[in-house]
Amino acid sequence: METVEVLDKFKNGELSLEDTLHFFEEKKYAEMNFAKLDTDRKERQGFAEVIFCNKKADEHLKEIFKKIYDDNGEVFGTRASKHQYEVIKEVISDIEYDEISGILKKEKNKEKIGNIAVVTAGTADIAVAEEAALTVEYFGGNVTRVYDVGVSGIHRLLDKIDVINKANCVITIAGMEGALASVIGGLVKNPVIAVPTSVGYGASFDGLSALLTMINSCANGISVVNIDNGYGAAYVATQINRLACKENGGNDGE
Amino acid sequence: METVEVLDKFKNGELSLEDTLHFFEEKKYAEMNFAKLDTDRKERQGFAEVIFCNKKADEHLKEIFKKIYDDNGEVFGTRASKHQYEVIKEVISDIEYDEISGILKKEKNKEKIGNIAVVTAGTADIAVAEEAALTVEYFGGNVTRVYDVGVSGIHRLLDKIDVINKANCVITIAGMEGALASVIGGLVKNPVIAVPTSVGYGASFDGLSALLTMINSCANGISVVNIDNGYGAAYVATQINRLACKENGGNDGE
Amino acid sequence: METVEVLDKFKNGELSLEDTLHFFEEKKYAEMNFAKLDTDRKERQGFAEVIFCNKKADEHLKEIFKKIYDDNGEVFGTRASKHQYEVIKEVISDIEYDEISGILKKEKNKEKIGNIAVVTAGTADIAVAEEAALTVEYFGGNVTRVYDVGVSGIHRLLDKIDVINKANCVITIAGMEGALASVIGGLVKNPVIAVPTSVGYGASFDGLSALLTMINSCANGISVVNIDNGYGAAYVATQINRLACKENGGNDGE
Amino acid sequence: METVEVLDKFKNGELSLEDTLHFFEEKKYAEMNFAKLDTDRKERQGFAEVIFCNKKADEHLKEIFKKIYDDNGEVFGTRASKHQYEVIKEVISDIEYDEISGILKKEKNKEKIGNIAVVTAGTADIAVAEEAALTVEYFGGNVTRVYDVGVSGIHRLLDKIDVINKANCVITIAGMEGALASVIGGLVKNPVIAVPTSVGYGASFDGLSALLTMINSCANGISVVNIDNGYGAAYVATQINRLACKENGGNDGE
Amino acid sequence: METVEVLDKFKNGELSLEDTLHFFEEKKYAEMNFAKLDTDRKERQGFAEVIFCNKKADEHLKEIFKKIYDDNGEVFGTRASKHQYEVIKEVISDIEYDEISGILKKEKNKEKIGNIAVVTAGTADIAVAEEAALTVEYFGGNVTRVYDVGVSGIHRLLDKIDVINKANCVITIAGMEGALASVIGGLVKNPVIAVPTSVGYGASFDGLSALLTMINSCANGISVVNIDNGYGAAYVATQINRLACKENGGNDGE
Amino acid sequence: METVEVLDKFKNGELSLEDTLHFFEEKKYAEMNFAKLDTDRKERQGFAEVIFCNKKADEHLKEIFKKIYDDNGEVFGTRASKHQYEVIKEVISDIEYDEISGILKKEKNKEKIGNIAVVTAGTADIAVAEEAALTVEYFGGNVTRVYDVGVSGIHRLLDKIDVINKANCVITIAGMEGALASVIGGLVKNPVIAVPTSVGYGASFDGLSALLTMINSCANGISVVNIDNGYGAAYVATQINRLACKENGGNDGE
Amino acid sequence: METVEVLDKFKNGELSLEDTLHFFEEKKYAEMNFAKLDTDRKERQGFAEVIFCNKKADEHLKEIFKKIYDDNGEVFGTRASKHQYEVIKEVISDIEYDEISGILKKEKNKEKIGNIAVVTAGTADIAVAEEAALTVEYFGGNVTRVYDVGVSGIHRLLDKIDVINKANCVITIAGMEGALASVIGGLVKNPVIAVPTSVGYGASFDGLSALLTMINSCANGISVVNIDNGYGAAYVATQINRLACKENGGNDGE
Amino acid sequence: METVEVLDKFKNGELSLEDTLHFFEEKKYAEMNFAKLDTDRKERQGFAEVIFCNKKADEHLKEIFKKIYDDNGEVFGTRASKHQYEVIKEVISDIEYDEISGILKKEKNKEKIGNIAVVTAGTADIAVAEEAALTVEYFGGNVTRVYDVGVSGIHRLLDKIDVINKANCVITIAGMEGALASVIGGLVKNPVIAVPTSVGYGASFDGLSALLTMINSCANGISVVNIDNGYGAAYVATQINRLACKENGGNDGE
Repeated sequence: METVEVLDKFKNGELSLEDTLHFFEEKKYAEMNFAKLDTDRKERQGFAEVIFCNKKADEHLKEIFKKIYDDNGEVFGTRASKHQYEVIKEVISDIEYDEISGILKKEKNKEKIGNIAVVTAGTADIAVAEEAALTVEYFGGNVTRVYDVGVSGIHRLLDKIDVINKANCVITIAGMEGALASVIGGLVKNPVIAVPTSVGYGASFDGLSALLTMINSCANGISVVNIDNGYGAAYVATQINRLACKENGGNDGE
Repeated sequence: METVEVLDKFKNGELSLEDTLHFFEEKKYAEMNFAKLDTDRKERQGFAEVIFCNKKADEHLKEIFKKIYDDNGEVFGTRASKHQYEVIKEVISDIEYDEISGILKKEKNKEKIGNIAVVTAGTADIAVAEEAALTVEYFGGNVTRVYDVGVSGIHRLLDKIDVINKANCVITIAGMEGALASVIGGLVKNPVIAVPTSVGYGASFDGLSALLTMINSCANGISVVNIDNGYGAAYVATQINRLACKENGGNDGE
Repeated sequence: METVEVLDKFKNGELSLEDTLHFFEEKKYAEMNFAKLDTDRKERQGFAEVIFCNKKADEHLKEIFKKIYDDNGEVFGTRASKHQYEVIKEVISDIEYDEISGILKKEKNKEKIGNIAVVTAGTADIAVAEEAALTVEYFGGNVTRVYDVGVSGIHRLLDKIDVINKANCVITIAGMEGALASVIGGLVKNPVIAVPTSVGYGASFDGLSALLTMINSCANGISVVNIDNGYGAAYVATQINRLACKENGGNDGE
Repeated sequence: METVEVLDKFKNGELSLEDTLHFFEEKKYAEMNFAKLDTDRKERQGFAEVIFCNKKADEHLKEIFKKIYDDNGEVFGTRASKHQYEVIKEVISDIEYDEISGILKKEKNKEKIGNIAVVTAGTADIAVAEEAALTVEYFGGNVTRVYDVGVSGIHRLLDKIDVINKANCVITIAGMEGALASVIGGLVKNPVIAVPTSVGYGASFDGLSALLTMINSCANGISVVNIDNGYGAAYVATQINRLACKENGGNDGE
Repeated sequence: METVEVLDKFKNGELSLEDTLHFFEEKKYAEMNFAKLDTDRKERQGFAEVIFCNKKADEHLKEIFKKIYDDNGEVFGTRASKHQYEVIKEVISDIEYDEISGILKKEKNKEKIGNIAVVTAGTADIAVAEEAALTVEYFGGNVTRVYDVGVSGIHRLLDKIDVINKANCVITIAGMEGALASVIGGLVKNPVIAVPTSVGYGASFDGLSALLTMINSCANGISVVNIDNGYGAAYVATQINRLACKENGGNDGE
Repeated sequence: METVEVLDKFKNGELSLEDTLHFFEEKKYAEMNFAKLDTDRKERQGFAEVIFCNKKADEHLKEIFKKIYDDNGEVFGTRASKHQYEVIKEVISDIEYDEISGILKKEKNKEKIGNIAVVTAGTADIAVAEEAALTVEYFGGNVTRVYDVGVSGIHRLLDKIDVINKANCVITIAGMEGALASVIGGLVKNPVIAVPTSVGYGASFDGLSALLTMINSCANGISVVNIDNGYGAAYVATQINRLACKENGGNDGE
Repeated sequence: METVEVLDKFKNGELSLEDTLHFFEEKKYAEMNFAKLDTDRKERQGFAEVIFCNKKADEHLKEIFKKIYDDNGEVFGTRASKHQYEVIKEVISDIEYDEISGILKKEKNKEKIGNIAVVTAGTADIAVAEEAALTVEYFGGNVTRVYDVGVSGIHRLLDKIDVINKANCVITIAGMEGALASVIGGLVKNPVIAVPTSVGYGASFDGLSALLTMINSCANGISVVNIDNGYGAAYVATQINRLACKENGGNDGE
Repeated sequence: METVEVLDKFKNGELSLEDTLHFFEEKKYAEMNFAKLDTDRKERQGFAEVIFCNKKADEHLKEIFKKIYDDNGEVFGTRASKHQYEVIKEVISDIEYDEISGILKKEKNKEKIGNIAVVTAGTADIAVAEEAALTVEYFGGNVTRVYDVGVSGIHRLLDKIDVINKANCVITIAGMEGALASVIGGLVKNPVIAVPTSVGYGASFDGLSALLTMINSCANGISVVNIDNGYGAAYVATQINRLACKENGGNDGE
């Protein structure tokens, strides 16, 4: 309902003063004492709230998981520990836990659309890759996994480049020097979301080196998210994948 | 032509040894002595090569502008100085120069598609914004400019949020502390490409502060390019805009 | 007593040589072997000494808590561990411990004045927020808590802005990219004390990113304290709140 | 006018649909093509907009100075060059320029209230100090200047401490290692706003060292603004000074 | 014996070929398989080798302690853990351990000369201070300890400045912002060796902030050693103290 | 005169109230409007004030040079430009200027004592070395210059080590990686003051690399001053040289 | 087989379509589900794949060790924990583990060629040195170990310089300030590979200081690998040693 | 002549005392007042001294060029400005200047040996590449130049990889993110010397990003020199090339 319409209805008595005020003042979040759940996000942005579990207190976590599950029939948490899995099982007995990525979820069946490639330089990057891949799937996208194709043996990548090029968006995940993003950026048509990881030692400075590499890439079509932020990359990739799969084409701003 | 097909044609004598070898060895770049122009890029990635003018020698610049203009009937350079404008006018007399952004271009008429919003926090960010906007237009996209809506007076942004939300992609440009990206990230549906700028002083460290802000954003849907890299943001935004405008929907990887 | 007065009294025999010397040489601290308690601080600055418990040896901590409690009838420590709580209970049996903030205190009843808002971006910032809030209360100020109103869902903040604007000073607490300070800075009349927190991961560099954001804020009226320094923010906010509540207006320097 | 009142008046026909919509949609800024002047700031925050001149184009600067001067009868710009002074003289013939601080202003007579001390460690810090002092005066506060009292000769500071302690707020300005802020913080009752400056060489890293010193201060009551940000410190100090001078005491949040 | 003298003696048969070669080739270290003890150091530099215990293997540590003790009748180790104390007790039963500083030593009685002041800003700096003080004493110097006189309550320092000024060298130890070094540097006549400590949190970056403060000090007469390096400060201070106590004055280079 | 004595004299009428107050309030600095000259420094610390010329205004510089020259019969400035030399010549016609070091001075004849070695790694470090050497000489010490003996050809250093070892203190000056300090530190008996210089390029980060090298030195007896701070090193070295040359030995703190 | 030859053979029927395709499409890696072993590396680069054990899952590690051992009859892993040794023993019962370096290997007898010197500054650098030395030996080179010859007692190094100068390549390993590399670089003829280590504390910043020292070295002939990267240095040194030992001299590019 | 032999000859009167002393004390450098030329370097390390011209005074530069030219019949300087070229022409009239690299040289004809590849990512890296290439040639090596083959169009590199693989050593030069080094490292047999360049903007931080990339490379066989240090890379590459071209194979350390 737009403002003019609301005001007209109010003037005509079709809308009470209370409802009219509600329209202008509506909170659009759930006050939970220690937190304010952004219940408007799904409508505003098209994504339900996902829970970043790390360092949350057990009691808080239980309340939040339960509230979101009750409201939506599904729930999805990232960076969960095994202990947190045990805690949430008390309130959602069939919650599922993926130890590699730390994803804790209970997911509705949904039809998947489009295609997002998730590519890693090494095997140590797989934890971040699975956080990205499972998030994409939760948000309703198909995933193509291509792991361990770093530039120290570039023939492994070239062998897979056709498969990667079929995706609407490529999530590229690499630690150490992070050169993989530049090489893929020079070979594919669609956007590359680069995720630096904290894999490495010494002058990798916990991912800073890979982050700088990706931000400075000489290749085009690359944008970057935070170190180890598989979830964030999946979110952007899903936005792009959804746009690519819309039936009647994109907006033209009018 | 695929490998099997080529080999069959070669065996059948439909293809000469020379042509067959050419298929496997084809250079796909123009050797220019001091440079190797990537003439394959348009086919491989859908974008013609753009010239980063900064610090290129006059003679080199002339040759490159001329070669690309002769091959494509249009040419586009970024970070050009006024002096370089004078230099290029000698070989392309009606080249156009935009002093604010440093864009140097001769552009074919082309139909624009979709819509990309280019949003700045302050007026000092406009140079980067115009680099982005003119690049989007050169690559065939419509642009909505929304300038000077930084968070120190957030009502200016809220007043424009509906316009911004109509774009397929939002390029958000901010220096100093760069908080604008997070606020927009929390309000729009489509991807936000964040561009930190070197605007600021003291502890802004020439854009490092804004870059860190954007990489750490608590909002979803944000990915980041290099400091002052308006061109790079425009490239990614164009990729997204094209996907959004494709008639028959996105790939599903099969 | 001013110098002239002292000297006159001394000349007139109203003051002994000993007392006069005492006036000029008075130590104004309690020598405790391993420490020199600044017993003059309350007079000089209006605040009794608060104990930073972290890393202090058990025996030292007991002595200091006891000495301050005996002298003042109340005592207040920050960054205390649960173990330290057990230790101090041996000397002050009814000492109180707040596990979230690590505050360890025994507090006299006191009338509270004015109003200070303590605002956080997320739930993980609450530990720092409670350190600030409890310190304000110990120093005699009223607190308004507004938690979890970060910019990724800015409607939650806008909904609370009227409440926040009623405070004499706003303590704004945020980790990750710390954009909340800028947004509040653009919306309120009174000073904002910004506290970056170490909440975040990757390129947040344990609070450095939030610190830079806040120091570079494009909004006016913001000054910054150390990462996670809820106590320091509370101290400044209390100074401001007291000035705002003084009956006969501020100094004019004459 | 509050929302309920507006709606009632609308229902009663006292307010037209247009005015009612205006209430909800009112822009509160001046659209100037290249900029959006925040005309609401004075009402919202109590301060008129001040112009950061550095790097602004001559034509833009003239328009902005003229618009603000015409609207308010006074105007104030920081970080102005001598060239910009010449430019603005064309539109405001009796504009005044202070070469040391780079302040460019035309100021109404106004009564000054309260007292703010502006203290520097060395003579090289005076440029920043005058930016602060002139800003405080423009915003209507009295200033006490105390220059060149750095800690290498601490008797100079101790000699002035009584004067400094009479201020409602102390702006402390220092480069190099910035230790002055800590010493003052330990001696005064009221808030200290610390301004690190880029004065120094070598490992001062253009003010970073002084910034870190001030953020880590062991003294209480210190909060920090950006390197060389005299204006920002003056803004916060003015907020505090106004609160201290309010006749009927501070808010209590109710 | 100088080269000319050796050669003459060799020619005259006063020195054998073996001894002459020995003069030119002498190793001056003890080969210990995993280490090469610098047995020449005492002659060359006037100090016996001290053992940095941290991270050394138990077996290696035992061998080194024993060898030095057997050769010199005393031995001194820094940064030793309680476990290492137990280990060394097996080979030197009456070795002494100071838990605060981590010093592990068996020391001959020796007459002390001169005077070195060891001054700390806070109580948390005492571990480093004791490392310095015990080292000075081992190297034969008198120590004056002045602890907890940081600048947040500067009257404590001013009360002790006469005592400090009697030392030939002042070791100043401070964490957080490290301002104490500058204040002392401005008040004393003799050299100040500044030791930044890792005491602090947030933007103290484990001592980096204090290190920068001290290196940039506006006061004269200050030089700096590594973070927490009490031993290194004691070494330099001992060199200075010895020079100051030499009976027949300093060298004049001839 | 001590406090007790003053008070007694005051009581007995030997001292007027004015003089007594003067004793307690005496300024000990020269108020110069824009500056407060620390006229007490010579008495307090044994060194007259030296002028850091860089960035001082011409008029200020003239006043300060003249005042110090009139008071002391000599004057010494560092980091002076050729322009400043011309300016000062107007007030002190026979002022001398050393172009390499930027020293501007008029010096009394004085007898030199002791010996300080000034050693550089390369020829580019000579500017800093001469700042140090001339300062030592102004403060009354003898200097031994040993230039261009960096570790890339270590035989040059070994050839000079006997000469260096005769000094009471060694100022070691090096840019790039600054390894010279460690090598000298391992070879000499007396204190080494290390001065990192901004000589170098790339990852030397304007002297940061050399600074870190020197602070982390594995050799003993090294303390460090700011990048390019030849003056500061000379000050400390002079303190040490004076102690070494005192006739009746050092203090013992009693 | 070169391309022309393959095509000719295919045309002549000497090569099947399948084999011809295989030539162009051959994968040259072993797909292992979670990893893609670069089986081509030995042929392409002359080195078999070595396993970086740190953080690899037990099951993955077992599979990889077994596959490489089965294929090559030997296997070599770096950064292995004692737990991983136990795990691998289950599949390769006589695997050998070196606790100091963390090397886990089963090695064929092989003739060693040439000579590589491995030199450390201190005893704490031996872990990295042994990683280097054992890797060189696994790759077939002779090693000369020279440990604990850091610059604080440079005579130890000078005593060994003849031995070091006999090597085809010198691996120089140092933490703290890392000056050893510069000194050796100035004394030897052949290339120096410098390895900074994380040995040190305070401003060594976990090896960053040593890394900067080595990158900025004033000596020639030094190139640098990552902090603690003994393996990487050994790889480069082996390449050089092999070139030096080739019978018929180096390539001339024709 | 070895020590024993010298001593025997001295004893037998075959060698004078003067010559014997000379053997032990020989300076092996040319004392030039402001500099100490390392005339021993050619014998000790096999390379004549090269002049780093940047920031050297004109008079000094003239003397050094002349001395080296007179001694060796050739001379080579790096980082020379056009002005310095004019200056040196006064003493060596036919000196040659290469404007791109800043090389200033007069070179004897010499036979070149072996082969070193110099590879750049972009055209802006050519200045550094020519510094490397001309240095290699001066030191007597053949050079293969391969320019502008960065990873954004990797087919250009793959097309040249056979040529690159024929070199005994590959100098890889890249700015921005520097990914080229990793890709080449994964493809060639012989050592790769990586040179980061300051080409780039924003978060390239003047070459720091490329430096970190190269130091962290996931590929083997890469070692790194300073940012823009073409000369340093050429020196190491020449050492390797010489070893590869030695007729009778490498040392085995015996």
